[in-house]
Amino acid sequence: MNRQDLVQLIRERKSYLCIGLDTDIQKIPKHLLSHADPIFAFNKAIIDATKDLCVSYKINTAFYECQGIRGWESLQRTVEYIPDDIFTIADAKRGDIGNTSTYYAKTFFETYGFDSVTVAPYMGRDSVEPFLAFPGKWAIVLGLTSNEGSKDFQQTKIGERFLYEQVMQTTASWGSADNTMFVVGATQSAAVADIRKLLPDHFFLVPGVGAQGGSLKEISEKGLNKDVGLLVNASRAVIYAGNGEDFADDARKAAQAYQREMSQYLV
Amino acid sequence: MNRQDLVQLIRERKSYLCIGLDTDIQKIPKHLLSHADPIFAFNKAIIDATKDLCVSYKINTAFYECQGIRGWESLQRTVEYIPDDIFTIADAKRGDIGNTSTYYAKTFFETYGFDSVTVAPYMGRDSVEPFLAFPGKWAIVLGLTSNEGSKDFQQTKIGERFLYEQVMQTTASWGSADNTMFVVGATQSAAVADIRKLLPDHFFLVPGVGAQGGSLKEISEKGLNKDVGLLVNASRAVIYAGNGEDFADDARKAAQAYQREMSQYLV
Repeated sequence: MNRQDLVQLIRERKSYLCIGLDTDIQKIPKHLLSHADPIFAFNKAIIDATKDLCVSYKINTAFYECQGIRGWESLQRTVEYIPDDIFTIADAKRGDIGNTSTYYAKTFFETYGFDSVTVAPYMGRDSVEPFLAFPGKWAIVLGLTSNEGSKDFQQTKIGERFLYEQVMQTTASWGSADNTMFVVGATQSAAVADIRKLLPDHFFLVPGVGAQGGSLKEISEKGLNKDVGLLVNASRAVIYAGNGEDFADDARKAAQAYQREMSQYLV
Repeated sequence: MNRQDLVQLIRERKSYLCIGLDTDIQKIPKHLLSHADPIFAFNKAIIDATKDLCVSYKINTAFYECQGIRGWESLQRTVEYIPDDIFTIADAKRGDIGNTSTYYAKTFFETYGFDSVTVAPYMGRDSVEPFLAFPGKWAIVLGLTSNEGSKDFQQTKIGERFLYEQVMQTTASWGSADNTMFVVGATQSAAVADIRKLLPDHFFLVPGVGAQGGSLKEISEKGLNKDVGLLVNASRAVIYAGNGEDFADDARKAAQAYQREMSQYLV
């Protein structure tokens, strides 16, 4: 999906909500466990209940990989079930030397048909560029993440600026705002205004709202740009909003609350 | 596999060779393509031909993931086929927030039974520590990688030292030399002596010998420690040494040349 179509979708739905399908077989309602593929059954119900309220689904591969081959089957069914007009993110945090990164790009863009994949920047240019070579596809590069560990290296000072600023500015120069986004944690809202100044045009994928405690209001005030420029992700706060037979209704209500709040910030 | 067993295996075989099963379906001998699982058929032949010459096999997941579910089946068959006394590495370069990294650790240590997994450090402590919580298992953290892109961020100067030095020293403090190794590229031999000073006890996994041009002699002179402390990986130079019906014999010859050279450096 290209930038224009994504921005248009956001405008139409008055939503920049991304729902994270971090589906953990330990946490899904017990009545689903009798399904042949409980993880897909859960995801299908969540997608059916929320697909008009969000513009993106993010699948964190870790939750699927740990189930072995069965997990990849659930992942494949899920991504195939997501409507074509919704932006899909493989939250896989991949990255390797150039030759090998190309295989990761093929995996998520071609084998599974995702629109985008999250990429770890530590290995530098030749580890990121292969993800930028697929028309209509996106690399979403880790910038300043939402977790405590972001202090260890990302927030190291290099002269006057932080490592994460160097990483984002340098990485941005390898592609464009049409094929590169950045992960910026909602828990880092103090830094978001500065990051937006550094990168006025790029989309940011913002995890950390909800269970991790980030504020949607704050991130929106500081992060929105003329083309919206934000995808705000909620995972646990939406998909585990309820745990009964009507879990999908509860997920819809949680997604609706986010969408309504977002509609106020979009003008 | 614990450190003591690994060191003993290296001493017995007079080899610190790791063979990288970066098996690309485009590059394997054509006569294997009629097998039900050509990638496994190739790996099986390579393992049969080299298992007494190396102490480790490294499986780079990218080459398997891009084949979809079939690829994960090949990966699983391969890791199950590797003899139990050989150290197995999932070269997956994973890393995520703590909750999620635990799922990656379970994936490779429990679901597939690897001894170790490569880990990307950019997200910091809570992204690495989950990999250190499994007895007898190892995190192999990216330090200074073999590729050109290592200049972009890893070799950034932070005051008097490089980012990769900060990453390695800090990460080393989260675990011990019994559960943490570091990736140090063979193409970075100028830096290896200093890295060895910084981390006298840790094992380094060294890719970049062979196709990428690193020197086994140089890396051995600078990197060996009292417990050996090196696993030197060759992938393409061994597995694609030949391309005919007798490709496994050619792979054995290539592995044997490495093992013989290594035996000279081990005293």
